[in-house]
Amino acid sequence: MISLDRYRNLRNAAELEAALREIGAARYHNLHPFHRMLHGGRCTRGQVQAWALNRYYYQSRIPMKDAALMSRCEDRELRREWIHRIHDHDGYGEDEGGIERWLVLCEHLGLDRTYVVSEQGILPGTKFAVDAYVRFVREKTLLEAVASSLTELFAPQIHAERIPGLLQNYDFVSEEMVAYFRRRLTQAPRDAKFALEYCKRHADTPEKRYLVCAALWFKCDVLWAQLDALHHAYVLGGGIPPGCFVPEEMKAEAAA
Amino acid sequence: MISLDRYRNLRNAAELEAALREIGAARYHNLHPFHRMLHGGRCTRGQVQAWALNRYYYQSRIPMKDAALMSRCEDRELRREWIHRIHDHDGYGEDEGGIERWLVLCEHLGLDRTYVVSEQGILPGTKFAVDAYVRFVREKTLLEAVASSLTELFAPQIHAERIPGLLQNYDFVSEEMVAYFRRRLTQAPRDAKFALEYCKRHADTPEKRYLVCAALWFKCDVLWAQLDALHHAYVLGGGIPPGCFVPEEMKAEAAA
Repeated sequence: MISLDRYRNLRNAAELEAALREIGAARYHNLHPFHRMLHGGRCTRGQVQAWALNRYYYQSRIPMKDAALMSRCEDRELRREWIHRIHDHDGYGEDEGGIERWLVLCEHLGLDRTYVVSEQGILPGTKFAVDAYVRFVREKTLLEAVASSLTELFAPQIHAERIPGLLQNYDFVSEEMVAYFRRRLTQAPRDAKFALEYCKRHADTPEKRYLVCAALWFKCDVLWAQLDALHHAYVLGGGIPPGCFVPEEMKAEAAA
Repeated sequence: MISLDRYRNLRNAAELEAALREIGAARYHNLHPFHRMLHGGRCTRGQVQAWALNRYYYQSRIPMKDAALMSRCEDRELRREWIHRIHDHDGYGEDEGGIERWLVLCEHLGLDRTYVVSEQGILPGTKFAVDAYVRFVREKTLLEAVASSLTELFAPQIHAERIPGLLQNYDFVSEEMVAYFRRRLTQAPRDAKFALEYCKRHADTPEKRYLVCAALWFKCDVLWAQLDALHHAYVLGGGIPPGCFVPEEMKAEAAA
């Protein structure tokens, strides 16, 4: 298992990029057992619902995270670039945006839109992890805030697995339900390329390069912890916290 | 002189709106002696430069203030409305944005763009007031943050005075220099109307209506204090703080 300490003495931008890719290869949440289940067709409909519902909370906070970054950014050019991320999620003009596309996914999975948006059924573990991410971006340096978005370097890979994984393995998943992921196939690489170049250019000391690595590491933890919470409650039988979403198929169990 | 206390028992939205208009009529910075000088053609070129330079700092922080609001806003519809303000200032697509238009004004007044953007010549009093505004929006309730934008209710009036006031009274002011204000004549009323309706709808107790009034009051102080700092340093001979902008015409004086 790699440790963050090995990234304390990165000498240049090329070594930084190699380190970031190593962290992604070792710690990105495509490796999590829940994602392997999800993409491999081994989830129940209730588990897919629980995943979509909880992941909605993450989606809902992304524009707030991006606005938090912009609120601390004195560089107009960086703000003008970064604002695309808010458009992509909240929607702008003709585009209904990623959050709306995610809500469509939830509805097609049989979840009530009002219930999803109320956030009532979300696991506390999801909220804690996501809120920690928003707070990280609000409180750390701008460089670390930008670096924490670098998980997007690895997102196209997971979406490329997920689209056929969901479509082929679940008869309740249709083309319109994966619209969110198809769009991210083009959005994420553009954003990731910009953030990577920004970090390579601005992390001009070993200490800053270390902080960039630590930010990506932290963000991998944020994504991983969300899946841990799901896996625990909805797969391993760790128990669904009071008030959280209970899939139909687990209702008998929960009542027993 | 009115006091904030009279707004502690507002009974409904109509009384709130009347109170807000009363505060604007009594405390908006169109009443400040510096603005009367500026619009009346009684400023020197150096004083107009000092005004534009210092006001640049305010412009530069507006999108950060708006992003701070969005970073705390869980309501996607509100974010989708509010983002226009960031576009208006930072520019988006074909539109170069209000900050760029302000920089053009500064350049035509003979200020070096790099110097303006460096923020080196800005008065500390300007920075303290503007930074207080950004912090207010970051830390107070969302309702108060929205309410602090309500000075825009009174902006068209000041811009309508300012455009002819600058063009007719100063031979160094040309049409392209007032582009910023012309644009605000349409932007500000749209934004102000939205914010006013938001406050009337969401301030549903006397306490909240009071907080809305207090937020507008605070914001009037923010604008007023900026002009006080200018007036003190560049008109009343209170002294230009070390390192701050010194107009050509005051250089001999400053050296003496």
